[in-house]
Amino acid sequence: MTERLIVIGGDAAGMATASQARRRRGRDDLEIVAFERGHFTSYSACGIPYWISGVVPDRDLLIARSPQVHRESYDIDVRLRHEVVGIDLDRREVLARDLDGGGEVRERFDTLMYATGAVPVEPHWARTDAAGVFGVQTLDDGSALREWLEAEPAPRRAVVIGGGYIGVEMAEALVLRGLEVTLVEQSEQPMSSVDPDMAQLVAEAMRGLGITVRTGVTVTGLTETDGRVSAVVTPEGSLPADVVVLGLGVRPNTALAEAAGLPLGPTGGIRVDRRMRVVGIPGVWAAGDCVETLHRVSGQPVNIPLGTHANKQGRVAGINIGGGYATFAGVIGTAVTKVCDLEVGRTGLRERDAAAAGFEFVSVITESTNRAGYYPGARTMSVKLIAERFSGRLLGAQIVGFSEAAKRIDTLAVALWNGMTVEDMTALDLGYAPPYSPVWDPVLIAARKAVDALAETSR
Amino acid sequence: MTERLIVIGGDAAGMATASQARRRRGRDDLEIVAFERGHFTSYSACGIPYWISGVVPDRDLLIARSPQVHRESYDIDVRLRHEVVGIDLDRREVLARDLDGGGEVRERFDTLMYATGAVPVEPHWARTDAAGVFGVQTLDDGSALREWLEAEPAPRRAVVIGGGYIGVEMAEALVLRGLEVTLVEQSEQPMSSVDPDMAQLVAEAMRGLGITVRTGVTVTGLTETDGRVSAVVTPEGSLPADVVVLGLGVRPNTALAEAAGLPLGPTGGIRVDRRMRVVGIPGVWAAGDCVETLHRVSGQPVNIPLGTHANKQGRVAGINIGGGYATFAGVIGTAVTKVCDLEVGRTGLRERDAAAAGFEFVSVITESTNRAGYYPGARTMSVKLIAERFSGRLLGAQIVGFSEAAKRIDTLAVALWNGMTVEDMTALDLGYAPPYSPVWDPVLIAARKAVDALAETSR
Repeated sequence: MTERLIVIGGDAAGMATASQARRRRGRDDLEIVAFERGHFTSYSACGIPYWISGVVPDRDLLIARSPQVHRESYDIDVRLRHEVVGIDLDRREVLARDLDGGGEVRERFDTLMYATGAVPVEPHWARTDAAGVFGVQTLDDGSALREWLEAEPAPRRAVVIGGGYIGVEMAEALVLRGLEVTLVEQSEQPMSSVDPDMAQLVAEAMRGLGITVRTGVTVTGLTETDGRVSAVVTPEGSLPADVVVLGLGVRPNTALAEAAGLPLGPTGGIRVDRRMRVVGIPGVWAAGDCVETLHRVSGQPVNIPLGTHANKQGRVAGINIGGGYATFAGVIGTAVTKVCDLEVGRTGLRERDAAAAGFEFVSVITESTNRAGYYPGARTMSVKLIAERFSGRLLGAQIVGFSEAAKRIDTLAVALWNGMTVEDMTALDLGYAPPYSPVWDPVLIAARKAVDALAETSR
Repeated sequence: MTERLIVIGGDAAGMATASQARRRRGRDDLEIVAFERGHFTSYSACGIPYWISGVVPDRDLLIARSPQVHRESYDIDVRLRHEVVGIDLDRREVLARDLDGGGEVRERFDTLMYATGAVPVEPHWARTDAAGVFGVQTLDDGSALREWLEAEPAPRRAVVIGGGYIGVEMAEALVLRGLEVTLVEQSEQPMSSVDPDMAQLVAEAMRGLGITVRTGVTVTGLTETDGRVSAVVTPEGSLPADVVVLGLGVRPNTALAEAAGLPLGPTGGIRVDRRMRVVGIPGVWAAGDCVETLHRVSGQPVNIPLGTHANKQGRVAGINIGGGYATFAGVIGTAVTKVCDLEVGRTGLRERDAAAAGFEFVSVITESTNRAGYYPGARTMSVKLIAERFSGRLLGAQIVGFSEAAKRIDTLAVALWNGMTVEDMTALDLGYAPPYSPVWDPVLIAARKAVDALAETSR
């Protein structure tokens, strides 16, 4: 019998695994079956807010590779709308349910890739039958929301619950569609992936867009009227809503893994080794939002659900399953987003992460500009650096600014990846021309200020 | 007597030295005199093309710090229009000529900073009295050119000689002013700071702007009529010109240094140590376009005239003169520019440099996009990587593309600075969000392709 790989989950991690394995091993050598409970494969979940807003005009543009392409060009047996409901490690079988037809099939495997992604965090009150309440985690979720926004009566007032990336991006998307939008965030500031001093700039930008930002507010329930959501309940009063978007974060989708006895780590993600093998379970691999990985700065395991990691991890697993050798090197928590024309980038540890990891540190914020000050369009860029005390090693960085701000975080991410000190960073040979940078790049200015701050603390 | 620092040259390197030294040592401890033969201090020479074009509306915007500020806030005795014409190392004196008054003064020094910058490369035919021929090396040069462009009869046809950064930037500036522009370049392509395959994209963009680009053409002379330049003579015929801009590159301005016996290296630049002390000459320092420095990839000395290096070197020298400790770490040749909306970035070695340095290497070019392919405004970005054979170490990188292309070179520059291999680079945690990057950043895609190319060569 031909060796058989079964992939559970047909998005980034699963399909990257399948296609990399196929590149190295032909049909006669490896049979590949992929189960996906949704209607789509290999799509950009990160792109959903931009399709909701209309910036991206067509849903199908978000699909990187259709099931047809996987089937025809990669010879992968993709089974859509099939949810795997059981894994039997002894018999080397999965049990999959056809969500449309209702039947169940058992399929044997030699090798298993567990790539089920993440599921939304849902407080008890979010488990409602009221119409008009949406997550935006899958393309199916996004499709449902878009239909609701386009149906009559057209929703006028939106409440977005949760101010993380997806909440902030969805709030902007809904404003762009012309809705009145309130964002409710439990903590002090939205965008808590950056420190509060930087997040404040994001909150201001959101308010500038006309979004009502309510911070320090915990949602306690939803009100429905005639089967439709009508308000979001908080201790500070009710917020009328014709549509509610949940952006409370996600957690690894591990129910099936737990049932089968796969090991979970402290983050709740599946434990894998450097090659993406599930620890202690021969022949079983995992990748993407459902696994935990090494944070290279804290040295701790983390679960960071993001398409770019899922793709890289899937590629690593696929190369290994295909008989090659590859390892996943871990992450440093780099991320970028935007709110209208305000750009946000972050990498490494926030102050609270650095403290939790046991570091003593200094942090500095500098304001400079994205271009030479005299060049038209020059705008303020705030750069925050967190550096370890004494050693001066960069621990984390955050940027908030306008044009060409967000991706400047990559410069800092590569410095961080390589363990550079802020002193070393002042010497970096970065590109300079007036349309792109002051003669001292904002990154260099920040490094210089961090060096000065370190000198203060060592006195 | 108070110790005395004399600075020769009042632009980036000289004034950065002076102000850093002043930050650490007050007036009673160190007297600072700076001689500048021009009318300005601390200005952005790199900004001149943008003032010529009108993009930057006012010349004074290019001046980072006026002589008044240097005098009043930093207590530096700035003497404009004073050209130092002699250095007497034994008597510890300089001889300076007042270019307006005509007198000469002798001034003693304890410490000397030589920061005379660069002088244009001028073939014999460029030494002309004909009006209408301009370099654009100093702000005085730029002022003279701008006056010519604004005088009657208004020049209509411009010829720019030399297709380096300044030539390309000036050609664009003159087109933006409405002139008919021809760029004449001796080699195969303009923008030879990148390899010909990448430079070709720049040449196409220039032609798209309406610039006539003549490559492989060597200028042999100028024609003048009634004391004004009227044509540029080449073996392929005469090019009519009402204004000629020389962009043939620069060389270290070392005449005075040579006369005083300062040591020059193989690049023609002054030899300095890591702290910016002139090698073997106690009490004498040098920084900026007139010195040579270490190229960290080739291991060879180079002379790279660029404001960002001049500023960094001046800062290092000033810290040391001020009693602190700092070293200049060398350069890797990072540079960025633009032609209209086409952006160009480069770092490290070109193919020819890598070969000259003795490396065997592979090079790859990848085409991807600056944003997720489905995100509006996504445009092609070409990334070229040059990696050492066997080791896979990155040796150089070049990017040509549109929005957010040029400064992406910094990501590669930091990787190069840290000696990363292309294999290591495929793992980098770079920012991903649809408005800023495909899920595989162009840098990662290029690294993956380079890894594949290395695998081919090791077979």
